[in-house]
Amino acid sequence: VSFRPCGIVTLLTDFGTRDEYVGTMKGVILSIFPDVRIVDLTHDVPSQQIMEASMTLGNCYRHFPAGTVHCVVVDPGVGSDRRPILVTAGGHAFVGPDNGVFSRVYALEEEPVVREISSAEYTREEISDTFHGRDVFAPAAAHVARGDPPEEIGPVLDAYVEIHPPEPDVWTDVIKGEVIHVDGFGNIITNLQRDLFQRQVRDRPFVVEINGRELTKISRSYQDAGVGEFLALFGSTGLLEISVRGGTAEKRIGAGKGDTVVVTVGRRRDQTPLF
Amino acid sequence: VSFRPCGIVTLLTDFGTRDEYVGTMKGVILSIFPDVRIVDLTHDVPSQQIMEASMTLGNCYRHFPAGTVHCVVVDPGVGSDRRPILVTAGGHAFVGPDNGVFSRVYALEEEPVVREISSAEYTREEISDTFHGRDVFAPAAAHVARGDPPEEIGPVLDAYVEIHPPEPDVWTDVIKGEVIHVDGFGNIITNLQRDLFQRQVRDRPFVVEINGRELTKISRSYQDAGVGEFLALFGSTGLLEISVRGGTAEKRIGAGKGDTVVVTVGRRRDQTPLF
Amino acid sequence: VSFRPCGIVTLLTDFGTRDEYVGTMKGVILSIFPDVRIVDLTHDVPSQQIMEASMTLGNCYRHFPAGTVHCVVVDPGVGSDRRPILVTAGGHAFVGPDNGVFSRVYALEEEPVVREISSAEYTREEISDTFHGRDVFAPAAAHVARGDPPEEIGPVLDAYVEIHPPEPDVWTDVIKGEVIHVDGFGNIITNLQRDLFQRQVRDRPFVVEINGRELTKISRSYQDAGVGEFLALFGSTGLLEISVRGGTAEKRIGAGKGDTVVVTVGRRRDQTPLF
Repeated sequence: VSFRPCGIVTLLTDFGTRDEYVGTMKGVILSIFPDVRIVDLTHDVPSQQIMEASMTLGNCYRHFPAGTVHCVVVDPGVGSDRRPILVTAGGHAFVGPDNGVFSRVYALEEEPVVREISSAEYTREEISDTFHGRDVFAPAAAHVARGDPPEEIGPVLDAYVEIHPPEPDVWTDVIKGEVIHVDGFGNIITNLQRDLFQRQVRDRPFVVEINGRELTKISRSYQDAGVGEFLALFGSTGLLEISVRGGTAEKRIGAGKGDTVVVTVGRRRDQTPLF
Repeated sequence: VSFRPCGIVTLLTDFGTRDEYVGTMKGVILSIFPDVRIVDLTHDVPSQQIMEASMTLGNCYRHFPAGTVHCVVVDPGVGSDRRPILVTAGGHAFVGPDNGVFSRVYALEEEPVVREISSAEYTREEISDTFHGRDVFAPAAAHVARGDPPEEIGPVLDAYVEIHPPEPDVWTDVIKGEVIHVDGFGNIITNLQRDLFQRQVRDRPFVVEINGRELTKISRSYQDAGVGEFLALFGSTGLLEISVRGGTAEKRIGAGKGDTVVVTVGRRRDQTPLF
Repeated sequence: VSFRPCGIVTLLTDFGTRDEYVGTMKGVILSIFPDVRIVDLTHDVPSQQIMEASMTLGNCYRHFPAGTVHCVVVDPGVGSDRRPILVTAGGHAFVGPDNGVFSRVYALEEEPVVREISSAEYTREEISDTFHGRDVFAPAAAHVARGDPPEEIGPVLDAYVEIHPPEPDVWTDVIKGEVIHVDGFGNIITNLQRDLFQRQVRDRPFVVEINGRELTKISRSYQDAGVGEFLALFGSTGLLEISVRGGTAEKRIGAGKGDTVVVTVGRRRDQTPLF
């Protein structure tokens, strides 16, 4: 799918909303492309968490119209020799640092084209060493969104940085995954995908264990448990999550990013069969 | 007043701003109605607080142009049989769950028309059990905002859920209300409306008591007290609030939602007359 | 530079994002000028911090297109006799209270024109004593943004309120400044500008001291230190800041607004020469 701009630029940063940094980027974009429509995805990515930014972007960009430019600035390496890049893939464009922040895009789209942003036509004249959001990424996003050709922004790169979310370990009767995110409702989101789970578990009994808590069924919705009760379900992005109806699983279970979740199929480890 | 869309969709949710949920909804809306103008009301309603969402919406929707679609997703019952609804009232449209979140609209507008969202033309093809913001409400809001007729979204409902903010108890010389909100400045907002207060108190002396603190006059503005002093006034929505000039009444008075406020008129209870 | 509106209104307030206050202002603006494009700068200025609002605005407004109207509501004096004003300067317009919130604009622009907002055509009919954001500033910003002439909003003022950020004390070999802001990354931002620093220090050795911590060089970017190490650099607005690569200087150094930073040139005070 080739890229044809639709006039939308989304912003995803770890700048927070108190300082002027986001406002500055918006001003730069509007100055270059006055008819742009700017959409905030989030500015509350935890500071310098590239993996979280990659997953947040990956979970929502496909819901935007083809032709959207997604400008992502989670950039601990600003001022180093990490390259600024423009990615075109799946009809969308992505502008940001080459630090892995577009890894989910690379995983989801076929044949992404990655270019280094090197043309001075697409950036500010003077480029600081501390704020490429203002000097490189906002201008590049605005230029591409207004129709300046991606091809002229710089050379295509053969190699670029990819980072990978932790993969679950899979044995015949055991899947060992981990918590990769806790959302704003306190839902504990794991790296276990519905497909994998169903392929391994099939119709057999199973136990999901996390921090000593055990769940033996998958719920369809948050309504399938009593208020205050735990449940496991596949959330809106298809990942296994542990929730508490009307409460926050995070607090109740004391689990956070990196904690282990184990699915044992058929019987429980070290125990007599379930039936 | 019939509904004629003006192209604006407002969003009011309890999603917070860190996850991709709000961004996903914006993408869905823009994909259906590219010329939409999306306005964030707030995404910081405390998790699953339907009453607070209802009051926040009720306090601001009338300031928007007629023809605005207000999309409200505070939806603890997602995945249950609670119905998704479209309300048209006072020239505005409202999309969200039938859980009482539009109660202030019902109270303020004459003859609201409430429809169940049942037409598949107005929602996503596949509807999850956990994220109707993405699958039902955002698409329905976008369709209505772009001009698809409200009449075709589904059947009119005769009965729908209403919730009521706590009503004050009113005796001849005493009004007993409660704190219904603490705002971002720490102002303590009660359920005592200016009209009721003036009707009951008239020109007589009175005492407002909250958490042992007593106030004997109504100020016009925050300037009517010295810095750091308490004052009672009717705030921007006409409700009695307790404030501290240049400070936060919440912290100073230790009061929160549900705490009692008592207005005694003419004299103080259990005490000699004031004059 | 005369003011010709471009249709953009920016908002900068201390309202936070949980209450309906910001949404109300947006509704008022859209009702007066339906084609407006509203841009949030920030609503998270700490409550009633006029100086911080002034600096946040000063750091970003020039990045917006000429013709932008900046509506600033950090207004502890609402309801007093402080005047509502419209400032036109440098091709931009500014609407807000006359409490010093535009001081950075006055410092950066030549010949700002300051008018009292007194025409009833530019405000709401009924003006409360507690929410001029809704009743005065949002309507005035919308009117000016849609093209109503600034000249007719009210009389030009000869005197208006200016506040000044703390100025550094400068001796031959010592500069004594202070911390004026800590940003969302925990970077400690001082009032020492690059120009002043370079003029005083020239090529001589120096020591930057803050809370007992000493730094003897200026880095170009956050990459010039090892992870977890301190560095001093001139940030995106040209001010000396103290940072920790991959961490938060604020926590590590325990410094906050108002703390002293001392630059000693040529040698360290009370010590033998450095070389």
